[in-house]
Amino acid sequence: MDFFQNINAMQVQGDWIICIRQSKPERMTVSVVFKNDNCGDTARKMVPPLVFSDKVAAEIDGSFFADLNSVIPDTAKLFSSMEHYLKQREEAQKHSQMETGKIEQQKKQQVDKLKNMKKP
Amino acid sequence: MDFFQNINAMQVQGDWIICIRQSKPERMTVSVVFKNDNCGDTARKMVPPLVFSDKVAAEIDGSFFADLNSVIPDTAKLFSSMEHYLKQREEAQKHSQMETGKIEQQKKQQVDKLKNMKKP
Repeated sequence: MDFFQNINAMQVQGDWIICIRQSKPERMTVSVVFKNDNCGDTARKMVPPLVFSDKVAAEIDGSFFADLNSVIPDTAKLFSSMEHYLKQREEAQKHSQMETGKIEQQKKQQVDKLKNMKKP
Repeated sequence: MDFFQNINAMQVQGDWIICIRQSKPERMTVSVVFKNDNCGDTARKMVPPLVFSDKVAAEIDGSFFADLNSVIPDTAKLFSSMEHYLKQREEAQKHSQMETGKIEQQKKQQVDKLKNMKKP
């Protein structure tokens, strides 16, 4: 039994939700959702689950990690890129002329206020 | 790899939801919820998940099915008994004097109504 060791060996950042429903005796449907709540982009929710539909248990055992390995690392990379993109965009906004302008304007307004208070 | 074959071998009526969260490298927390939506008693939701908290993957692999086998079959039996109890109670109510009385009364009322309609 090395199921969890195989999951661990994938070394991807995120959580797994695995649902198993016995459809008929000997057959089952398994869906695997991989998610990363650290990714702030809600588009991550559009990534569909990986589904093994109405298959014999041995068949799922045979292909489970091969199938997971063919999609999940890329999904994990996508989540990470999405989050990186959001952080970079935030950073860009902070350093933009527009934001710097706003801050300068706020500072000026405060100075003006103080000046007006001192006048009388 | 025989994870899903082991699940299948348990031959219990219900669905499984397995959540896996990597807590630290090499360590993970796994929770297993076993549920049966065919059971109409909402008390079934009070059965807690089985949790393997912050353990090394190999440790979980080592004890997963032994632990599952020690609790899940009884849970499945409980769900089945709950549902059986509800069905029997429903059946008992249907055949009770109270219900039979109600039906007799409704019939009488309808006959009375018809009689009153015919009078004029």
